[in-house]
Amino acid sequence: MISLSKPPTTAAQREALELLQQGRRFLLTGHVRPDGDCIGAEAALASVLTALDKEVWILNPDPVEPQFDYLARDFVFGAYDGGEPPRHDVTVLLDCSELDRCGRLADVLAGGASRKLVIDHHLHHGPPWWDAAYVDHGASATGLLVHRIARQLGIELDRAGAQGVFTSIVTDTGWFKYSNTDAETLAVAADLVAHGVDPDALYRSIYQRKRRSHPLETGKVLATTEYYEDGRLAVVTMPREGDGGAPALDGDDVLDLLRAVESVEVVLSLRELAGGLVKLSARSKTDYDVNALARLFGGGGHRKASGATIEGELDEVKDRLVIAASRRFREARGS
Amino acid sequence: MISLSKPPTTAAQREALELLQQGRRFLLTGHVRPDGDCIGAEAALASVLTALDKEVWILNPDPVEPQFDYLARDFVFGAYDGGEPPRHDVTVLLDCSELDRCGRLADVLAGGASRKLVIDHHLHHGPPWWDAAYVDHGASATGLLVHRIARQLGIELDRAGAQGVFTSIVTDTGWFKYSNTDAETLAVAADLVAHGVDPDALYRSIYQRKRRSHPLETGKVLATTEYYEDGRLAVVTMPREGDGGAPALDGDDVLDLLRAVESVEVVLSLRELAGGLVKLSARSKTDYDVNALARLFGGGGHRKASGATIEGELDEVKDRLVIAASRRFREARGS
Repeated sequence: MISLSKPPTTAAQREALELLQQGRRFLLTGHVRPDGDCIGAEAALASVLTALDKEVWILNPDPVEPQFDYLARDFVFGAYDGGEPPRHDVTVLLDCSELDRCGRLADVLAGGASRKLVIDHHLHHGPPWWDAAYVDHGASATGLLVHRIARQLGIELDRAGAQGVFTSIVTDTGWFKYSNTDAETLAVAADLVAHGVDPDALYRSIYQRKRRSHPLETGKVLATTEYYEDGRLAVVTMPREGDGGAPALDGDDVLDLLRAVESVEVVLSLRELAGGLVKLSARSKTDYDVNALARLFGGGGHRKASGATIEGELDEVKDRLVIAASRRFREARGS
Repeated sequence: MISLSKPPTTAAQREALELLQQGRRFLLTGHVRPDGDCIGAEAALASVLTALDKEVWILNPDPVEPQFDYLARDFVFGAYDGGEPPRHDVTVLLDCSELDRCGRLADVLAGGASRKLVIDHHLHHGPPWWDAAYVDHGASATGLLVHRIARQLGIELDRAGAQGVFTSIVTDTGWFKYSNTDAETLAVAADLVAHGVDPDALYRSIYQRKRRSHPLETGKVLATTEYYEDGRLAVVTMPREGDGGAPALDGDDVLDLLRAVESVEVVLSLRELAGGLVKLSARSKTDYDVNALARLFGGGGHRKASGATIEGELDEVKDRLVIAASRRFREARGS
């Protein structure tokens, strides 16, 4: 009913595909606190390499979050706890392009004799250090690149690998909501569902596993909503309780709800940590660059989603942030 | 990059396609309070018929909600206010299969001499009364059926028509979240994005136009969350304020947040109206049939989403509902 064509291959991609075909023992790894795109892409690539009769290990700096445990039923996601990794001749770094994003695994992998392959959709800063790279920062997810690789190698993903690609896509596009949701992303998702992925079941596993206290905690934070700049800036605060910091909310429900307000362009969420620190999460719905804002406070991230950890009392940090954020609105208006 | 094949055509569908090709002046209509699927399908069919050089009017019992005003920039959505509808030889009823769902328009259309075509994805109860029907209750949206019609007639949808189909699909699948999201739905969405639909812009228009008071109102309702049956049943209440009823919340954020709790299978939201009435909205995440529950209280709907308007004081109605809902859990356990 639907057919996806084989994507054209660049010279650099051909080198990457050759390395995948030539290698025999593969170690797949990713960044610290691996997210859905990272582990989904690892699962998908493990499925491709297994179809090619390769030996494959997945080893990350940190364990997989419980919301993705359906992937852990089909693949073993190792979490590095010291010692020697399994013997391998190719290391594949997924969803990042620098080994130092691999935490404690970085030195071990950098020192090894294996050839290095990067598969990623982020911008790389600095000179290339790898043996081969399959990179496209126009792709919505790293898992989408693995799907291209499978098509270019003529390999049909099994259901477990298809679940990996689907996980990558939905977590990096906010379940098809963000502006990176393009035609290829939706077409690949269609192909995956045709190959047995159940979107409803995955949605429940990824997003519907909140604690019973979650609605009340969410309501409490929403009650602190304040607007500035004619409603273009919304701020919520989570003061610390007793000696510890304020507990982190599970997921992005509060940020999503504030973004749903028509006038809102920028959302700042401030959580007081123990020890006189405040954690900022900043989101933008427009061209407003929250990365630039977060950098003023020693943090960073992307234009539409950034963060920082800031020294100071909650109210004082909030005032500083509101002043800085408001100034950027006025600068953007050219005054 | 992606190609959608022409779907096979049944004999009944061929009659419907013939009527579309033979008619000259078309009146497109739908149910009272037309939703995204209804007006999206109307927009898409208007685009198809215009490509066939037909004259087309869209006339609904009620006006289009502001969240869909991007469609109203390309098409005129008339709202019936009495008198004679434009002269037409074919009436097309979209997203429902009974003229009496058309409110005040029902009698006018039933009395007219035009031939009647139904395009719908709901189950029809009772004998067929139409001249032709294009019905598939396995389709995720009525707009998806119009996309099939376009393919079968060999017509390429323009951007305005593509936006109509996309609107139908996303509003009836909860933006690709519900279990009706199948491979065809995603493949058609991919095709529409390839034809110029901007998912990000449509998401903002449909879901991100809330009032500034929305986060605070949402927080207030979440603060009333109560659990029963080991957390499988969640209940929130909105008591009336002063003489009027409690204001309705915009959208389904509260219901979605409660469904996100892992233990929750059923959500009941109770809003006190003026005049001793309580409005129930019930949602199910599992096989639990909230339609059966709502029917006990004189309401109805679907297995996963139902409602009722119930006489009584808020607390008393809540108690009756919790008892009835809990009994159904125990019956399902076979005790």
